[in-house]
Amino acid sequence: MATPDEIRATIDRYIEAFTAGDAEGWAALFSEDATQEDPVGTPVNTGRAAIQGFLDNNLALFGSLQLHLKQEPVIIGHEAALSLYALAGTGADRARMPDIIDHMTFGDDASITSLRAFWTMDSITPDPE
Amino acid sequence: MATPDEIRATIDRYIEAFTAGDAEGWAALFSEDATQEDPVGTPVNTGRAAIQGFLDNNLALFGSLQLHLKQEPVIIGHEAALSLYALAGTGADRARMPDIIDHMTFGDDASITSLRAFWTMDSITPDPE
Repeated sequence: MATPDEIRATIDRYIEAFTAGDAEGWAALFSEDATQEDPVGTPVNTGRAAIQGFLDNNLALFGSLQLHLKQEPVIIGHEAALSLYALAGTGADRARMPDIIDHMTFGDDASITSLRAFWTMDSITPDPE
Repeated sequence: MATPDEIRATIDRYIEAFTAGDAEGWAALFSEDATQEDPVGTPVNTGRAAIQGFLDNNLALFGSLQLHLKQEPVIIGHEAALSLYALAGTGADRARMPDIIDHMTFGDDASITSLRAFWTMDSITPDPE
């Protein structure tokens, strides 16, 4: 099983690659047959290519995306629960997803085997730069 | 399916009954055959009686327990994700669990069908009154 430090390193790279707009590096943190549901209730992306497509599409839509931890991730065994916020877009049109909770599971190599992101559209607020 | 308002009412009663030390009222919010894992990684309590036993034991141990939401619950379909903190004990011995993330599922009657609480012992800090 992956150690908590290895899982934490994956989480840190996940946030860094997402915020850097590095969709390929971000998708590489998932296992080959991982599932990703963001937000919960939307269709599940299965496999690294589909997961990369999710971020590619969102980067094309918003231009800039940022992801920030609100507190230390809770890592237990092969699972983690995260509290985060996101910023989407730039300038006067920037928006904030203030309350995101991610549930992740990890493989023995600390790759992400599943991700479910809990947040709702009605929580989004304007956050102009 | 339960509405978001019905699920939110269950969540509010869950926190109120827990903080009031009303183990029976708290356990009554779960479905008859619900599962409860708090924290994740410890044995799962199955059924309302076992779940009430969890809170009875913790009340006997700590005397006083408080649970507080840190942000609006994220409610999607029959699921919710919560960010909370807890206070355990009183006076000089009070301790804080600062970063708890709960994942809950709900039945058609808005009863809790499963709960998994993500937090770790090493996150606990002294919080004397």
